[in-house]
Amino acid sequence: MRVLGVDPGLTRLGIAVVDGGLGRAVRAVAVDVIRTPADDELATRLLKVADGVEAWLDRHRPDVVAIERVFSQHNVRTAMGTAQAAGVVALAAARRDLPVMFHTPSEVKAAVTGSGRADKAQVTTMVTRLLRLTEAPKPADAADALALAICHLWRAPVRNRMAEAEARAAELAKAHRARLAEAAKSGGRRPAGGAAATPNSRAAGSRAVGS
Amino acid sequence: MRVLGVDPGLTRLGIAVVDGGLGRAVRAVAVDVIRTPADDELATRLLKVADGVEAWLDRHRPDVVAIERVFSQHNVRTAMGTAQAAGVVALAAARRDLPVMFHTPSEVKAAVTGSGRADKAQVTTMVTRLLRLTEAPKPADAADALALAICHLWRAPVRNRMAEAEARAAELAKAHRARLAEAAKSGGRRPAGGAAATPNSRAAGSRAVGS
Repeated sequence: MRVLGVDPGLTRLGIAVVDGGLGRAVRAVAVDVIRTPADDELATRLLKVADGVEAWLDRHRPDVVAIERVFSQHNVRTAMGTAQAAGVVALAAARRDLPVMFHTPSEVKAAVTGSGRADKAQVTTMVTRLLRLTEAPKPADAADALALAICHLWRAPVRNRMAEAEARAAELAKAHRARLAEAAKSGGRRPAGGAAATPNSRAAGSRAVGS
Repeated sequence: MRVLGVDPGLTRLGIAVVDGGLGRAVRAVAVDVIRTPADDELATRLLKVADGVEAWLDRHRPDVVAIERVFSQHNVRTAMGTAQAAGVVALAAARRDLPVMFHTPSEVKAAVTGSGRADKAQVTTMVTRLLRLTEAPKPADAADALALAICHLWRAPVRNRMAEAEARAAELAKAHRARLAEAAKSGGRRPAGGAAATPNSRAAGSRAVGS
């Protein structure tokens, strides 16, 4: 699977493509930073971000786009610009029917360093190590984009297994309710299925599939 | 001049087209609300907003796009979504080389009601009156989009006059500095131009043109 990772921003937007296959092996395909001048109009800056990202989508044809989710920042104006850059990236992906996933900074840090509170230097060190790069990616936005793509490759299977487990549990619960209804109709006898027909059946199903 | 006014949002985005000519007369051309389902993915919602706005740009061919500037809201997630919807609208305008202007909510309220702290009902009342509508536009987002377009039509000339005045003042100041330099070269005599060559010349120029 090929992931385009984006650390959004108007002044500097980190962008990276990482391939991941079986197991934990990841390979960096490309990494760079898209910059827009601070004295340009907002609309012009967003257009430059959009054009830059579309060029990457054309060149690298990723299967999925992973974007860092930004909740808040010290500076409200900066946070808005960052959110808008992220929105423009998500729009470009949606126009090509590519799935878009958001990961929080702490999810990204935890994925590559083991700690959600790791600092930038630690993230850069681990990204360099995991991707077996000969030198550390710079600036931090570029390293973050790589970390984000790795995070997506490693978290997506976990998320998918959880979603599958939830769907399976929901099915089991539905079948169980149907059996109960059937039993009620046929005279209030204890439904077939014994132990499965307990209030814990959903959780039990979830555990069985999710483990 | 034809203005497309947008009160950005993901759940409801107010959108309106208003024509303004000589004097203060304004005419509503169209007004509506673009909605996107809250349970859709963010990228899908942004795509729906973008497609909706592009359809309006195609149909109404405005000369300029005016967007409400949102600094902050109670809910950070809502604020981010609103900023992203605004960004997508700005991007659509920039793709067509249309100028994009942002106005704050208090500028909009002040333009149509005379007070930057007017409530929604007051804005709706004044929009209905100024545009001579037979009934009040609903919901509030639609009325806000109309108010925003009116605000732009009425503020743009003021802004342009101020920009012209500043440019003129800068020119005067430059000419003044050139005269001073010339005078210094020719032996430190008092420069020609008398009263104009005072520290107040820039402000005086600004007042003369801006009034």
